[in-house]
Amino acid sequence: MTPSHTDEPVVPPERSGPGGLVRLRLDVAYDGTGFHGWARQPGLRCAQAELEAALRAVLRVPAGVLVRVAVAGRTDAGVHATGQVCHCDVPAEVWRALVAAAGTEGAAAVLRRRLDGLLPADLRVRRAALAPLGFDARWSATWRRYCYLVADDPAAQDPRTRGHVLWHPRPLDVAAMHAAARPFLGEHDFAAFCRARPDASSVRTVQAIGWRRREDGVVAFDVRADAFCHAMVRSLVGAFLAVGDGRWSGDHPAALLAAGARVPGITTAPAHGLTLVDVGYPPEAELAAQAVRARRWRGR
Amino acid sequence: MTPSHTDEPVVPPERSGPGGLVRLRLDVAYDGTGFHGWARQPGLRCAQAELEAALRAVLRVPAGVLVRVAVAGRTDAGVHATGQVCHCDVPAEVWRALVAAAGTEGAAAVLRRRLDGLLPADLRVRRAALAPLGFDARWSATWRRYCYLVADDPAAQDPRTRGHVLWHPRPLDVAAMHAAARPFLGEHDFAAFCRARPDASSVRTVQAIGWRRREDGVVAFDVRADAFCHAMVRSLVGAFLAVGDGRWSGDHPAALLAAGARVPGITTAPAHGLTLVDVGYPPEAELAAQAVRARRWRGR
Repeated sequence: MTPSHTDEPVVPPERSGPGGLVRLRLDVAYDGTGFHGWARQPGLRCAQAELEAALRAVLRVPAGVLVRVAVAGRTDAGVHATGQVCHCDVPAEVWRALVAAAGTEGAAAVLRRRLDGLLPADLRVRRAALAPLGFDARWSATWRRYCYLVADDPAAQDPRTRGHVLWHPRPLDVAAMHAAARPFLGEHDFAAFCRARPDASSVRTVQAIGWRRREDGVVAFDVRADAFCHAMVRSLVGAFLAVGDGRWSGDHPAALLAAGARVPGITTAPAHGLTLVDVGYPPEAELAAQAVRARRWRGR
Repeated sequence: MTPSHTDEPVVPPERSGPGGLVRLRLDVAYDGTGFHGWARQPGLRCAQAELEAALRAVLRVPAGVLVRVAVAGRTDAGVHATGQVCHCDVPAEVWRALVAAAGTEGAAAVLRRRLDGLLPADLRVRRAALAPLGFDARWSATWRRYCYLVADDPAAQDPRTRGHVLWHPRPLDVAAMHAAARPFLGEHDFAAFCRARPDASSVRTVQAIGWRRREDGVVAFDVRADAFCHAMVRSLVGAFLAVGDGRWSGDHPAALLAAGARVPGITTAPAHGLTLVDVGYPPEAELAAQAVRARRWRGR
């Protein structure tokens, strides 16, 4: 889920443009139930590997040429996405052949349709396009938005959506949870709410955060930040659920945040309630500068 | 899906009351994906059989006493429900023991919780209560409401909800579908849109019908009628989808309705897009009279 994993090479933004490669932006959605997370892992079914295999096949990429997809939010096993954003650099001649047949917009539509034809039903490409100059799905992003869904009332527990809504056995005080979340707005060191990674900063800026009860009775947590460290959203949700059902006082999560170190008391909420909903990017002229800034700040 | 199947005995409303049996009302929800429909069928996994088995266990019903659940809408294989309503007659002494321990309201809550504890995650009891006098889940109902969901736009296709939203490969003209549905309001012989059943009337009264595009881009069909004959909603949806993607002219469904006999051209839409959303009942004083009326009209 975190953009601070850097255990694989990311294609640098300088490689986009009219050279030997063109960069494509793909907006994808997946049901995380059947995936061991986004990132490729040997022997496990992962969204990244499925997408890369489909791209290889659709683009008929010559043997020996790597197809690597970079992503805005590296979701953990079981976490879903509706607005995940990726990029992928493909040989320019492959793209030019598509454009010659269908025009630039047509080429993107054809590519999207062919990918969806090959991909399994739990992974969809919602949009494909030539990426603007300087675009990097991961490093150009200025924010990620996640949503966590909880049904605390048996009358709101819908078996059709049980794969992406947590069923909580006790009633939740949504106003108390919302109040407990307010102090998390702004820049903080989220060390207390992250799985430790040596050498990685856990300072993040939360741009929006809040709990609400939807019309259908389901309780929703929305959080937007420049980026998230590992397991951060689920650790926050675990803390706020403890407030909501009365196990913790409302000011306890903020006290943990201030203490600034991981404590054993925080339960990470189950993965299946969490969905990456949206990723934000600056205007085209600032894409490359944002990538440089983010890489300096959060990268190695 | 139709209340006009009568291949099993329905407990008559006279049996409710303070006698040897008490009648319970259960509001249930299920994901139809894993069920061969509502109605018990030998050797197949059905919602009714699962619920009856859980009731037997929770109520500790003595051996030899039948536990039979009657239902408002007998959904087909693959069809979901969020607002299905059932009733079940249980030995009064079993109920009295629960009430003695927890009070009348408490007894219903305890029963609901115990049922949910035993039931699989794709079948939930959302509410349990002592049924009012004269209540019959099937025959007292004055209307059923179904919803059919379709995602025609790749950007609206959410893998998390693919189990209850049909993915349609062509864009839909929702205004044209809505206009084509208007003539179906009111009382009609729906023979053209029903799987034939000898000796059963196919006259039904549609109380509300319409197509709309939701905020998330998903297209929704809502239809409410006194009752539905077999495969009626899915046949209607099949006809309106043909209008929506331009295969049929807008007046063709109404012309078929007027012709009044099943024609080969109607494609029944897939089961998984359909959900029984809600069932309506008259005020308590009219429950028994409504049951007598409906049974005379639609029963054999």
